[in-house]
Amino acid sequence: MKRILILAAIVMATTTTMAQTPAKKHFTLNDLLSGGSTFWNLQPQYMFTAWWGETPLELTVDEVRILDVYSGKAVSTLFTTEELNSVLGEKMVRSCTNLQFPYAEETVVKVQVPKEIILIDFKKKSIVWRGAIQEGASELVWNAQSKNMAYCIGSDVFVQKADGTRVRLTHDGNDDIVYGHSVSRDEFGISNGLFWSPDGQRLAFYKKDQSRIPSYPQVDITQRIAATYVDKYPMAGEESEDVSVAVYDTKTDAVVWLKNDKPLTDYMTNLSWAPDGKKLYVFELNRDQDFMQLFGYNAVTGEKDKEPVLEEKHPKYVEPLHTLEFLPWDDSKAIMQSRRDNWNHLYLVEFKNEVYPEWLSAEGGGSTSNHVSVTRLTPGNFEIRSFLGFNKKSREALFVGNVTHPLRGTIHAVTVGHHPTMRRLSVDDGVHSAILSDNGSQLIDTYSSPSVTRKVEYIDTKSAKGCNLLTADDPWAEYAVPEICSGSIKAADGVTDLYYRLIKPVDFDASKKYPAVVYVYGGPHAHNVQASRGYYFRGWEIYMAQLGYVIFVLDNRGSQYRGLKFEQAPFRHFGDEEMKDQICGVNFLKTLPFVDGDRLGVHGWSYGGFMTTNLMCSYPDVFKVGVAGGPVIDWKYYEVMYGERYMDRPEQNPEGYASSSLLHKAKNLKGRLQIIYGYNDPTCVPQHTLSFIRACIDAGTQPDLFTYPGDGHNMFGTDQVHLHERITRYFEDYLK
Amino acid sequence: MKRILILAAIVMATTTTMAQTPAKKHFTLNDLLSGGSTFWNLQPQYMFTAWWGETPLELTVDEVRILDVYSGKAVSTLFTTEELNSVLGEKMVRSCTNLQFPYAEETVVKVQVPKEIILIDFKKKSIVWRGAIQEGASELVWNAQSKNMAYCIGSDVFVQKADGTRVRLTHDGNDDIVYGHSVSRDEFGISNGLFWSPDGQRLAFYKKDQSRIPSYPQVDITQRIAATYVDKYPMAGEESEDVSVAVYDTKTDAVVWLKNDKPLTDYMTNLSWAPDGKKLYVFELNRDQDFMQLFGYNAVTGEKDKEPVLEEKHPKYVEPLHTLEFLPWDDSKAIMQSRRDNWNHLYLVEFKNEVYPEWLSAEGGGSTSNHVSVTRLTPGNFEIRSFLGFNKKSREALFVGNVTHPLRGTIHAVTVGHHPTMRRLSVDDGVHSAILSDNGSQLIDTYSSPSVTRKVEYIDTKSAKGCNLLTADDPWAEYAVPEICSGSIKAADGVTDLYYRLIKPVDFDASKKYPAVVYVYGGPHAHNVQASRGYYFRGWEIYMAQLGYVIFVLDNRGSQYRGLKFEQAPFRHFGDEEMKDQICGVNFLKTLPFVDGDRLGVHGWSYGGFMTTNLMCSYPDVFKVGVAGGPVIDWKYYEVMYGERYMDRPEQNPEGYASSSLLHKAKNLKGRLQIIYGYNDPTCVPQHTLSFIRACIDAGTQPDLFTYPGDGHNMFGTDQVHLHERITRYFEDYLK
Repeated sequence: MKRILILAAIVMATTTTMAQTPAKKHFTLNDLLSGGSTFWNLQPQYMFTAWWGETPLELTVDEVRILDVYSGKAVSTLFTTEELNSVLGEKMVRSCTNLQFPYAEETVVKVQVPKEIILIDFKKKSIVWRGAIQEGASELVWNAQSKNMAYCIGSDVFVQKADGTRVRLTHDGNDDIVYGHSVSRDEFGISNGLFWSPDGQRLAFYKKDQSRIPSYPQVDITQRIAATYVDKYPMAGEESEDVSVAVYDTKTDAVVWLKNDKPLTDYMTNLSWAPDGKKLYVFELNRDQDFMQLFGYNAVTGEKDKEPVLEEKHPKYVEPLHTLEFLPWDDSKAIMQSRRDNWNHLYLVEFKNEVYPEWLSAEGGGSTSNHVSVTRLTPGNFEIRSFLGFNKKSREALFVGNVTHPLRGTIHAVTVGHHPTMRRLSVDDGVHSAILSDNGSQLIDTYSSPSVTRKVEYIDTKSAKGCNLLTADDPWAEYAVPEICSGSIKAADGVTDLYYRLIKPVDFDASKKYPAVVYVYGGPHAHNVQASRGYYFRGWEIYMAQLGYVIFVLDNRGSQYRGLKFEQAPFRHFGDEEMKDQICGVNFLKTLPFVDGDRLGVHGWSYGGFMTTNLMCSYPDVFKVGVAGGPVIDWKYYEVMYGERYMDRPEQNPEGYASSSLLHKAKNLKGRLQIIYGYNDPTCVPQHTLSFIRACIDAGTQPDLFTYPGDGHNMFGTDQVHLHERITRYFEDYLK
Repeated sequence: MKRILILAAIVMATTTTMAQTPAKKHFTLNDLLSGGSTFWNLQPQYMFTAWWGETPLELTVDEVRILDVYSGKAVSTLFTTEELNSVLGEKMVRSCTNLQFPYAEETVVKVQVPKEIILIDFKKKSIVWRGAIQEGASELVWNAQSKNMAYCIGSDVFVQKADGTRVRLTHDGNDDIVYGHSVSRDEFGISNGLFWSPDGQRLAFYKKDQSRIPSYPQVDITQRIAATYVDKYPMAGEESEDVSVAVYDTKTDAVVWLKNDKPLTDYMTNLSWAPDGKKLYVFELNRDQDFMQLFGYNAVTGEKDKEPVLEEKHPKYVEPLHTLEFLPWDDSKAIMQSRRDNWNHLYLVEFKNEVYPEWLSAEGGGSTSNHVSVTRLTPGNFEIRSFLGFNKKSREALFVGNVTHPLRGTIHAVTVGHHPTMRRLSVDDGVHSAILSDNGSQLIDTYSSPSVTRKVEYIDTKSAKGCNLLTADDPWAEYAVPEICSGSIKAADGVTDLYYRLIKPVDFDASKKYPAVVYVYGGPHAHNVQASRGYYFRGWEIYMAQLGYVIFVLDNRGSQYRGLKFEQAPFRHFGDEEMKDQICGVNFLKTLPFVDGDRLGVHGWSYGGFMTTNLMCSYPDVFKVGVAGGPVIDWKYYEVMYGERYMDRPEQNPEGYASSSLLHKAKNLKGRLQIIYGYNDPTCVPQHTLSFIRACIDAGTQPDLFTYPGDGHNMFGTDQVHLHERITRYFEDYLK
C-alpha cells in the first residue's frame, strides 16, 4: 500500500510559524494542494545540494556552486549550465539541480537526459564518456564503476555495456512473465528489479511469473469503444506470483539462476550484494510471512549456502524491509535493520564470526536464531527512520531516528562494534533528512519543525558542529494561517500514548462552537503527526480551518515509527483497535469547549477510507458526515503481500475477515457518507467500493458516490484540486 | 431503446378520480412504485379474461368462468384449478390466469409449466397431449396446429416435434454466432428469432453473426475476483451484425437459407409467413435506414422474388415496425402498417394485383413505389396504436388508435376494401386495449381515463354495444391524492400542439409558491402524457406532490403517436428541438402563480437522462437541480440500429454528433446534477456517464454520481424503491 502515503505527504517536511494574524490573505485550494496551480509559489524556499567527494555543492538552475563550510555561503562557481551545453554542442541541460558527481577524485559530472547518459570533465570541458539510452528503455540502472547500463524493454532485460555493446538477457517476457521489474507489489522494501554488483560487473535481476493471477477487469473509457487492459491482481488467499532471481555476468555473458529450494510463492527480498560481487544475500520469507531466513548465494554458480546467516520468526509476522549495508572498512561485516527487538534498530552482522544457532525469544515477541554473530548497535525505545551511511574515518553508522521524541527524526551516529556508543549530530528538534559526503565525515541536513519553516545546515560529523546554509522565510506571512498544535492522549488500552494534531479555525473565537472533521489514515507504514512544519499538516486542513472547521488528526495504534507491538495491535482484525483509539480522540475532542460534538465529520483515504467507512457504520451516532476515498471494504479483495501479512489468508482467519468486512456493516449507515474512488484504482480495486454500494442498496441505506475515470489510487494535478473541492463541498453541504 | 419505456410505464393504463381530499393517508414509495412491497395492494382491480372460440371467459386463480354477455356476470364454472391438478395427478397448476384455449372447437386448455406443455380436455378430464420442455430451453415457441416446439439451447436452435423427436438445427452457435434469438437489438419491431409457419410445419429463424462487434467491458463484481462477461455492443458507425434467415422444414428436416442479395449488415425485419406457409415475406432495410423493400422468398428453395412487393424511401428514415397481417378470408391480401403518409395507418396490400411501379411522393415526406396494389384503409390525422385483428364476418380490421384525440386510444373498425369506412366501437374516452374472439365478432375491452379508474367491457363488434364486466373502485379512496390535470401549449415552432400533465402538491394552497420538477423523456417511441388514469402519471410524481412539489411533464416533438414529421423534428441533431419545446413548457410553468420559478428541477431516464443533463448544461440558469438516469451523453457511444436511424453514422453527420454531445457542455454545469446509472447497463453503456464525469472533472464542474452494481438500464424491485428514495432526497437536499 505504498502509494497511500502520497496524499498524506502532499506538504512535505517544512516549517513555518502558524500564529494567527488578522486581516490577511486567504488561501485557495490551488495554493494549498501540490496539484494546485499556485502551490509552488507558496512553498518554503528549498536548496538543492550535492557532494563531490568531500566538497559540498549547491545546485541551481544556472550553475553549480561550491559552498564554504565556515560561512555557509557559495564561494565560487564550479561550472554553469551554459558551459555544459557548450561542451555538448547543443542545449541538452536545462538545469543543474539534478546533476550527479559519481567520482570523488575526478572532475567529472554525470548528465542524464532522456536519450543519453554523458560524463563531462567540467575542468577540461570535454566529454569523457557517453552512452545512448535505448528507445523504450525503463527501469534503467547505470553503474558508475563499470559504466554498464541495465534496463528493460517491456518485460525483458537488456544490458548495454560501457562500450555500447547490447546484450538481451531474456526473451520470453510478456504480461505474464516479467523480468527486471519490481516484484511482490513493492512490499518488503522492494522497489526495483535490477541490481548491479558494486563493481558493476554482475547484474542480479528478478523474474516474476504472474500467469496464474487473474487480471482485474480495469476499463479504459477513453478508447473509441471502452476496453479492458491487463492488471494482474493477486487477491488474499488466491493465486500469487512466482518470484525467482538470476545473475548475469558481463564478462562471460552467462545467466545463472539462484538455486532456491523454497516454494516460488515465497518472498525473496532486499537483495544485497557482497562488496566483492561474488555473493548475493537474499532475505527469504515464507508466504505466511512469519519465518524469515537470510541466505547467501554464490553469484557465479547460483548455489545456495547450506546454512542461513540468521533467522527470525514471529507468531504475527516478520517484515524485512531493508538491504544489508556492508561496512566500507570490513567486507565481512554489514549493518542490518530489524524489529526483532520491537523497535527498528541497527544490528552488526559479522559473517565470518559463526556462532552455534539457537532459537531465542526476542523483545519484539518473536524469536531469532543467529548463525553468525549479530550485535545490536542502537539502544532504547526508538526507531531508526532511515539509515544515512557511514563515517569511514570514525567508523560510525549515521541515521535519522525518533530518539528523543516519538514525533521527531533527529540525526545520530553510533559506533560500529561490540560496545557501541551513540551521539546526536543534529539539533534536537523537528524532522531531519541528510546527505553524506563521500567518506561520511560531513553532511548536509535539511529539516523543519513546528517553529522552523525549513533550515539547511552543514554539519561536520566528527564535531557535530557546522553552519547554516539556508533559513527559509515563512512563505505564508501575508496569509491568515490557523493555529496548529499537538499533544497526546491515552489509547483505548489505557497505557499507550497517542499523538494528535489539532487545527483551530482561522479567526478563532473561543466562545463559538465549531464543527470538527477528523482526518484519519490509521494503517501500518504511515503516520500523520510528526514534529515537522505545522506538525505535518495537509494543505486541505488549512483550507478547512479557513472555512471554520476544527481539524483533528490522531495516529492510532497500528501506525508508523512506534515499534512492532504498537503496529501489530490490529493483527488479524483490522479496524477494531484503530477505531477504539480514534474514538478516544473523538472523546477528547468533545471535551474541547469550542467543538460542537453534534457536528463531527470524518475523512480518510485508502486505509483511511476503510477507517472512515468503518467509523461511519460502527459509530453511526458519533459522526454525521464522512468522506471515504479509495477504501478497502473487505480485505479478501486486497492483495496477497500486504493483506496476508496482517490478516493471514481468508481460510486461516475467516472470523477476522468477516468481522472486518464493511459489507456486513452497510446496514448501519445513518449519516451522510460519500465514497470516492479512482475508476482505475489498481491498489484498492473498485470491487471494494462497488460491493459496499451494492450492500448498502440491499440494506436500504444511502451512501453517496463519486469516481475519477482514468485515475488510480490517488488523484494528482487538477484532479486533486477537483477532488478536494468536492470533499469540502460535502462537509459544507451536510456538516455546516 | 425498448427498455426505456419500462419506467415510464410503471403505472399502466388505469383510472381513478384524483380529487384532493383532506386528512387522508399518505403514500410511501413502496405503495407507489411497481417494485414496492405494497404496490399491488393499492392497484385498481383487474380482470383476467380470455376467449375460447366465441365464448368469453374470466380467468381467476381458482377457476375459469364463462361470462354472460348480457348481464356481464360469470354464469358458470368451466373448470377449476383443482380439477386440472386432479387430471395431472399432481399440483402443477397454481392459477388459471395464464391458461390458453388454442382450439375454438375443442374442449381443450393449454397448460404451460417450466418443464412441460400439456393439453387437457377439460370436459373429458383427460390429458390430450403433453410435450416435455428440454432443460435449458429458451425462446420457446409452440405451434398449436402442429404441436411442434422450437427453442434455443444457448445459441443453437432445436425443434421438438409433436411426437417428441428432437432435431438440432444448428451446431456452431456461440457468443459470436447466435441462432434463433432476436436480432438488430430488438429494433424494427423485432422481439424474437423463431417463427413458425401458420400450420407449424416450417420454422423460419434468424442467424446473427456478431463476431466483428467488440464486447463492451461489462464487469461482474459478484465474482470472487471481479470479471468481465460478453456483451456485444455495436456502436454507431462501427462494425455491426450480419443477419440472415433460414427455413427448416419439419417434413424433410432440410434447412434452406434465404438467398438474400444484399449486404448482411442490412436489416431483415418483420418476417411474415404467407398463410400457406410456402412464402416468407421480409421487410428489407439498408443500413442507412432510408430505403425499405418488401420482398417475398420461396420458403422451400430460399429463392428471392425478382421484384419487391413495394418500396419506401425517405430522406430522413423509414422504419418498418409491423408484420403483414393476411386477411383470414383471402390469402392473397394482407394488412400492412406504414407511416408513408406521415401517420401510422393501415394499408391493404393485394399481392396478386400487380401494378406498374413508379416512385411517387408520399405525405410523410418520402416516396413510395408499389409493385402491387396498395390501398390506404384508415383516413385522417391519427395513428394506429395497435392492430387488434379482423372481424371475419364483417370483413373489418379492428384497431386501437388516437382517432378522436391525440392523447386517447379508442377502438375502431375499418372495412377492408378499396372504399373503406371506419366506425368507432368503444366509448370515446381514455386509452383502451382489447382481445378479440376467434372470429372477431366480439371483444373484451379494458380501459381507463382521467375519470375512469379501470373498466372492462364486453363489446359486440357488429353493434358496438355490450355490457360492463368490471368497474374498478378507486383503490386510493382513503389516501390524500394530488390534483392531476392536462392541457396543451404551442411548441417552439409556434404551430404544433404539445400536451402536458401537471400535478399540484397535495394540500395545495394557491397562495403559496412551490418548487417544481419537470419529468422528461423526450425521445422517439415513447410518450408520457395520455388520457388514461391520472393522465398516465408515474407513482413517484404522486410521492413528490405529497412532499410539496409541482410536477410537470410535457411530450415534446420527437415523441410518440403524433406522426412522422412530429417525430422527425430532431433528426440529425438530437436534443435541440426537444429542449426548445421543454423550455416552452418551463415558460408556461413559470406563468403559474403557485410555481416558484427560482426552484425548478428536472429529472429523466435514458433519453430523458440525456435531456436532463442537456437541459442542466444548456440552460444552466433555468434549472437549479437535476437527476439524470442512465443517460446518453454522446450518440457515438449509442448503438447502430437506433442511433444511426436518427443521427446517421458519425462520419456522415460529424456536426450533429459534435453539437449533440454533452461532453462539450460539461463545462457549463452550474446547478446540482446527479447522474445515476446501472453499473451493468447494456443499453446506455457506462462509457456515456463516465465520459461525462471525466469531462466535468477536466472542466472543473461538479456533478454528483451514483451507480447500481449489477443493474442494467433500469432498476426493479427494491432497487427501484432505493433509487427513488435517492432521487427524492436529492431534490429535498437542494431544491427545497
